[in-house]
Amino acid sequence: MTSYKIHPAVAEAVRGFSCPASLGFGAVTAPVMYSVEYRNGAWGQGELLPYGDIAVPPGCKGLHFAEQIFEGMKAYRFEGKAPTLFRPRDNWARFVRSAERMCMVTVPEHLFMDGIEAVTGACAPHIPTASGQALYLRPFAFGLDPSYTIKASDNLRFMVIGSPVEAYATAPMRVMIERHDVRAARGGVGVAKTGGNYAASLRSSTLAIAGGYHVSLWLDPETRGNIEELSGMNVFAVIDGVLHTPELNDSILPGITRDSLIRLARHRGYKLVERVMNMEALLGDIRDGRCSEVFACGTAAIVNPIALFGEADGRTVPLPSATPVASELRQALLDIQEGRGSDPFGWIVEVPPLAL
Amino acid sequence: MTSYKIHPAVAEAVRGFSCPASLGFGAVTAPVMYSVEYRNGAWGQGELLPYGDIAVPPGCKGLHFAEQIFEGMKAYRFEGKAPTLFRPRDNWARFVRSAERMCMVTVPEHLFMDGIEAVTGACAPHIPTASGQALYLRPFAFGLDPSYTIKASDNLRFMVIGSPVEAYATAPMRVMIERHDVRAARGGVGVAKTGGNYAASLRSSTLAIAGGYHVSLWLDPETRGNIEELSGMNVFAVIDGVLHTPELNDSILPGITRDSLIRLARHRGYKLVERVMNMEALLGDIRDGRCSEVFACGTAAIVNPIALFGEADGRTVPLPSATPVASELRQALLDIQEGRGSDPFGWIVEVPPLAL
Repeated sequence: MTSYKIHPAVAEAVRGFSCPASLGFGAVTAPVMYSVEYRNGAWGQGELLPYGDIAVPPGCKGLHFAEQIFEGMKAYRFEGKAPTLFRPRDNWARFVRSAERMCMVTVPEHLFMDGIEAVTGACAPHIPTASGQALYLRPFAFGLDPSYTIKASDNLRFMVIGSPVEAYATAPMRVMIERHDVRAARGGVGVAKTGGNYAASLRSSTLAIAGGYHVSLWLDPETRGNIEELSGMNVFAVIDGVLHTPELNDSILPGITRDSLIRLARHRGYKLVERVMNMEALLGDIRDGRCSEVFACGTAAIVNPIALFGEADGRTVPLPSATPVASELRQALLDIQEGRGSDPFGWIVEVPPLAL
Repeated sequence: MTSYKIHPAVAEAVRGFSCPASLGFGAVTAPVMYSVEYRNGAWGQGELLPYGDIAVPPGCKGLHFAEQIFEGMKAYRFEGKAPTLFRPRDNWARFVRSAERMCMVTVPEHLFMDGIEAVTGACAPHIPTASGQALYLRPFAFGLDPSYTIKASDNLRFMVIGSPVEAYATAPMRVMIERHDVRAARGGVGVAKTGGNYAASLRSSTLAIAGGYHVSLWLDPETRGNIEELSGMNVFAVIDGVLHTPELNDSILPGITRDSLIRLARHRGYKLVERVMNMEALLGDIRDGRCSEVFACGTAAIVNPIALFGEADGRTVPLPSATPVASELRQALLDIQEGRGSDPFGWIVEVPPLAL
């Protein structure tokens, strides 16, 4: 007995689904989705549905005023075991903080977990099991009110969709330092996981890819001198054997993988410093050989080394190809996420089976 | 014979529609909408449809990465005359610039005008005719691709919806100076009419309304000292009899009403200066009596005087209640828009009738 409805066509949708051999990241759509609406001051009953288009008012604020927030998380499965989630309540807590920053109605923990567990439970047989693979989960909410006044919606839709995936990036990344565009203002919404920050990244991503890079690195909006994050990933550097990562401010997204790596690295005996990190100083440390590794992390990327930093004009500063610290931390994180290692921080949550 | 399809239910939808006596701004929805999609590298055929919910992929970038742009414009009608538009090709040109900033597919002029003219033509009998009233038109486009990679969509939907409206604001406005939040970064997307800028405004709007203000005034993202714009409106001040307005930069929206007032004011013999306008200096000029009026303008607001500037803590600086310059320019603009005066700039475009 679940607290949400299960549409009669869900069982058939799950049975009829099969994962292709090549997954990519987001190319394959999970066969079910969860949806619940907030209307007239109250949440309705959630429902697990076959995946498909949704009906929205064409003037809704989700589509006009970017009144939208989301999360990215993963469900893991090891052969013969129940699916598991990694720190799902931290995603929920960040989802609430994002909603608060955007003045949106907050989704209660039980509905958030219902959505995550319903999609994960229904898709359990289709969660890919090789290391680095997972069911990517995308909880999101958007304003439903069709209105032109600059005011948050009274009505909201919360949904969870999913995608069986590989790791987002699989090779060391070529990173373009973005010198012109800014992802998020100080006093803006950079700290929230909301669409506008990603929209502001599209031009830079386009230029980066056209220039042979994989992703842009964002500098702070005030001095344009300090490292903030990559599009969708936080950054760590190893300098003189010590780990460094930009300290949080109101324009950096507080990554859950970032937080996990900080705790994991300290647990493994690394010294780790959160501080303002100047870009030119880091490039100097790389050239001098004091900085031996820089790597990115995120739910999608897991832990991924950076091969080089470059400018829009093509000048680059390469990093060493050996990345022992990134490899060690990536493996330690995956060992916890994929259920091979112990779970000293209590990060893993098992998903109850869903009978369809 | 139109270049777009007309759904067979459109005629009935228009016949069955009637405008309530009280319109507000956006509370009444026009009975039809225009839609056209860009897929596989080409635009499909547009269609005029009865207004209703639209089907979108739940993972589309319009809802996740705020890949969305819009315009705001109005169609006017005087008794016994055909409907008219005000500078519609300037809205189209800005829509194209917004698309380019967001790396989105651009909507060709003929499709943009088709959409505007189809909705205006079909709604012609329902365009309210009192001065200050109009059919508000909302052209918008959003990314359709359901994908989690930070890259612009290959597929796009362009739509036009409408709403018979009064003026957005009808009383002199109480304006809260926003000292903390920032609407758009330098190097951000403030110059584009895209949802993320409005999402970033929601918290400030909420606080402003809770504090008894109507709207927030945004300061520049770098020094936090200079006036940018109100949420959705540009600003003019009359100082020693001369009009002043903030000069455009990459975080101020280049308003079409702003541009129209600049040309209209100069045409009427006013001296007008576009310059960086410091907030404290303006407050000093108001206190000293040198600044006699400050007013806001926009498609929705037309021209609307500001009654006072205030802080979040309640301190306020009032402005004189007599607003002769704002009243003169508002009337001159409305005389052109509503077809009473001559049209020296060629701003008015008649809409061909639509037989249903």
